[in-house]
Amino acid sequence: MHTSSHAVARLLGDWSSGPGPAHRRLADLIRLLILDGRLPLATAMPGERDLAAVLGISRTTVSTAYATLRDQGYLSARDRARSRTRVPHRQPEAAVDDRDLIDFSHAAPPAPGEALHRAYTSALNQLPRHLPRHGYSPTGLAELRAAIATRYAERGLETTPDQILVTNGAQHAIGLIARTLLRPRDRVVVDHPSYPHALRVFRAAGCRVVPVAVNEDGWDLEILSATMRGAALAYLMPDFHNPTGLCLSEKDRLSLRPQCPIVVDETMAELALDVAPPTPLAAYHSNVITIGSMAKTFWGGLRVGWIRTTPDLVQRLHQARADVDLGTPVVEQLACAELLGGIREILPTRLAGLRRSRAVLLNLVAEHLPDWTVGESHGGLTVWTRFPDPISSALAAVAPQFGVRLAAGPRFGIGGAFERFVRLPYSLDAEAMKTGITGIADAVAAVRSGRRADTPPAALA
Amino acid sequence: MHTSSHAVARLLGDWSSGPGPAHRRLADLIRLLILDGRLPLATAMPGERDLAAVLGISRTTVSTAYATLRDQGYLSARDRARSRTRVPHRQPEAAVDDRDLIDFSHAAPPAPGEALHRAYTSALNQLPRHLPRHGYSPTGLAELRAAIATRYAERGLETTPDQILVTNGAQHAIGLIARTLLRPRDRVVVDHPSYPHALRVFRAAGCRVVPVAVNEDGWDLEILSATMRGAALAYLMPDFHNPTGLCLSEKDRLSLRPQCPIVVDETMAELALDVAPPTPLAAYHSNVITIGSMAKTFWGGLRVGWIRTTPDLVQRLHQARADVDLGTPVVEQLACAELLGGIREILPTRLAGLRRSRAVLLNLVAEHLPDWTVGESHGGLTVWTRFPDPISSALAAVAPQFGVRLAAGPRFGIGGAFERFVRLPYSLDAEAMKTGITGIADAVAAVRSGRRADTPPAALA
Repeated sequence: MHTSSHAVARLLGDWSSGPGPAHRRLADLIRLLILDGRLPLATAMPGERDLAAVLGISRTTVSTAYATLRDQGYLSARDRARSRTRVPHRQPEAAVDDRDLIDFSHAAPPAPGEALHRAYTSALNQLPRHLPRHGYSPTGLAELRAAIATRYAERGLETTPDQILVTNGAQHAIGLIARTLLRPRDRVVVDHPSYPHALRVFRAAGCRVVPVAVNEDGWDLEILSATMRGAALAYLMPDFHNPTGLCLSEKDRLSLRPQCPIVVDETMAELALDVAPPTPLAAYHSNVITIGSMAKTFWGGLRVGWIRTTPDLVQRLHQARADVDLGTPVVEQLACAELLGGIREILPTRLAGLRRSRAVLLNLVAEHLPDWTVGESHGGLTVWTRFPDPISSALAAVAPQFGVRLAAGPRFGIGGAFERFVRLPYSLDAEAMKTGITGIADAVAAVRSGRRADTPPAALA
Repeated sequence: MHTSSHAVARLLGDWSSGPGPAHRRLADLIRLLILDGRLPLATAMPGERDLAAVLGISRTTVSTAYATLRDQGYLSARDRARSRTRVPHRQPEAAVDDRDLIDFSHAAPPAPGEALHRAYTSALNQLPRHLPRHGYSPTGLAELRAAIATRYAERGLETTPDQILVTNGAQHAIGLIARTLLRPRDRVVVDHPSYPHALRVFRAAGCRVVPVAVNEDGWDLEILSATMRGAALAYLMPDFHNPTGLCLSEKDRLSLRPQCPIVVDETMAELALDVAPPTPLAAYHSNVITIGSMAKTFWGGLRVGWIRTTPDLVQRLHQARADVDLGTPVVEQLACAELLGGIREILPTRLAGLRRSRAVLLNLVAEHLPDWTVGESHGGLTVWTRFPDPISSALAAVAPQFGVRLAAGPRFGIGGAFERFVRLPYSLDAEAMKTGITGIADAVAAVRSGRRADTPPAALA
C-alpha cells in the first residue's frame, strides 16, 4: 500500500504548533499514526520532496524526521523503493506493558479479585467432568451459553442457548461477523466517533466505512436510517457508547428504523451509572446481531465474549471460525459462566465504585483543565472531553514525556476528525488519575507554548 | 461461489457401491462433503439435470437426494436460483458434542487431570499480581513467553522470549501467519496428506495450494525443494506428521534446502514414541517459522499455542492480530506456563500410555480389519491406514449408523485424494477403541455389500 502526501497531511492535521523543532514534532506525530494503526504497517510513505511541498516546509525537515523514524525502527531502511512503515520489535510491547506511565489509553475496569478467584475455583471443581472430552468447543460450552442466555432474559430479551456463539472477546466477535457477512467495497455504517478496533476490522475487510455523527445530543435517528439504506451492515454502540458514554433512550430504541442488519456492540451495556439499565436493542427489532463481552463488566484478562443472533447464523459463524481458531478455553468458559451467574451480586458495588471514580475524574478535569468540556455520559468507563484547539494528536505524542499514555481523539474517528477531543477513562484509582490529569495539564501547556518537558519524569529518567 | 457438476463428481469419487439406494448414498456423501468443508458453505450446487448427466444417473436420483438434503437443512430451499449448501442449526453441534458415538474423527489426547489441576491452582495463586493491570496481553504474558523459550532451549533451539507470540492455539497461529504473509494467488506448498484445518486457511486466503506427497517412505526432499521454488510459503509437519505420524530424520533435516519461508507446525513434536525427540527444524535453517501448541501435548481444552520467529515478525503478527482478537486469557497463560515448566515430569507417563494405546489399536485393526495396512509411524496421536477399495468417504458417511465418527481420508488431501485411507487416532481408551474398530469393521462390510446397518445402534435409536 502506498500513501500520498495529501493523505499524510490530512492525518497530521494541524501540527504547526507544539514543543520542540518541527522535524521532531513531525517524527513524533508520524510515530503516533503508526502505533495507532492510522498509518497501517508496510505503508510506503511519500517521498521527502513531495511531502515537504505539500506541508509547506523544507525538505530537510522531512528528511530529518524520516531519518529519526528510521533510527527508531518505525520506517524501513531506505533502499531503491520508498520507506515503509514498520514497528521496532521492542516498542509496542513496552507501549502495552509499561507500568511506569499512567495509562489513560485503555478503558479497563479494576478487576474484582475475590469474585474472580471464586469463579475460577468453582471452574476447577467442575473441570473433571470435562476432562474425558477432547476439549474443543467452537460454539461454546453448554454451561456458558446457558448463562449468557439467562442474562439476556434478565435484561428483557428472551434468548435460547443455541442463539449464542461464545467468542474470544468482543473484537474476535466483530472479526468473525466481518468475515462472515462482509465483502470488499460493502458499505458499513458506524457511529462517529466509534470503537477504533472495530473501524480497523472494517477497513481491513476492504469495506467503505460511513460515519454517522454521535454528538452531545446523541444519535440523529433520521440521518442514521437514511445512511443505513443500501448498507451491508451498521455497527452501533447504543449502550454507553464508546467513547462518549451516551445511551440511546428507550423511546429512540423504539423509533429507530433499521434499514440494514445492525451489529450492536453491548460491551459496556452492564455499566449503567445514571440511567436504568437499557433493554437490549434486539428486544425492539429483529435483524439485530448483538455482541457482548466480559472485559468491561468484569476484567480485560478474561478473553471471552459472545454473539447473540439466530441459530442459523450462529452455525454459519461457527463454520467460518475454523479459519480463525478452534474455540475458547474450557476453564475460562466455566469461570465466565460462574461470574455471569453471580453478576447481580457483583454489579452494584462495581457501579458504585465507578460513580465515585468518575466524580474524582470530573473534579480533576475541572481543576486542572478548566477550558476542557466534559460531554454528558450515562455509563460505561469513559468520558469524551473537548478542548478549544486541535491539538489531540500532538498531545498524545508528547504525553509520555509527562508520564501519561493517551489515545488521540482521531483514533476514534475517520479522516482525522476529533483533533479537539480526548477520551478519558475513569477506571483508574484516584491517585493515578490525579497524577495523570496533572501530567496532561502540563503536556497541554507544553504543546500550547511549544515547550518540551522541563525534566523527564522519574519513570523515564 | 458456484460449483460445477464435474467438480462435484470429482469430490464424490467412486460412490457407485455402498449400502442402500443411490439417492440416499448421494445425499449421505454430499452431506459429508458439506460437513467436512470440502463443499464450502453457501456454494451454489449444480442443477439436477446437469449433475445427473455428468454422474450418468437418472435425474430423479439427484432430485431425490437434493430433496433429502433440503429437508435435513443442508441445502437452501429451492427458489429461482440454485440450491446452496448450508448447515442445519443443530447438526454441527451434535456432531461435535455427541457423546454417544465413538469419536475417531479427533486426535485428542487424554487430559492429564492432576497436572491440569495443579497448574490452574498455581495460576490462581499468581493471579493477584496481574489484577492491577488491564489484562490485555496481545503478544503474551512474560511468564509464558519465557517458559516457551526455555522449552525450545531444552529441545536444542536457543530462543529469547521476544521471539515468541502467544496465540489461541495452533490454528489461530496458522491464521495469523496467513493474514500477515500471504496474498491471494500466492503458492503455498503443503505436505500431502496434511492437516485439514491448515488447508482450509490457505484456501480461504485465496492461495494456490501445491501438495508434495508424504508417503510410506516419508518426504522426497528433491521434489520438496523444487516445488518450494517461487512459492510464498511452505507449511510442513516434519515432527510426527498429521495424519501419518512420520518424523523427518536428522540427516534429512540437515539436507533439506528451504527455497521459501517454511512454517513448521510442531503441534505433535513432543509426542516422540519410537524415535529420539527431534531437534526443531529451525535449529537447522533460518527462514523457518515454528508453530507450537498445548493441545496435543496436554489437552485440547487448553486453547493456547504460539509462533516462534524473529522479533520483528512477532511485532508484525502482533499488529495484524488486532483485527482478529485482543489476546489470550491471563489465567490460561499462567496455567500453560506451569504445565510447560513441568513437562519433563508429565511427558514420560503420557508417552508410555500412548505407546500402550497404539499397541491396542494396532491389534484391533489386525484382528477386525485384516485387509487394512497400517503405515509406519514414529509418534503423535494417529496412524494412517490404507485399504484396497476407494471407500473412505462412503465409510465416513455410514459410520455414525454403526456408532462411530470418522474423518474421511480426502479431508486430509486435495482434489479428492486418499479415498483408500482413513486416519485412526489411538488417543481413546481401550474399551472405546474396541467398540469403535468393531463398528468400523461392520461399516466396511456394509459398504462393501451394499447393506445398511441391520439395526441402528442403541445410541441412535
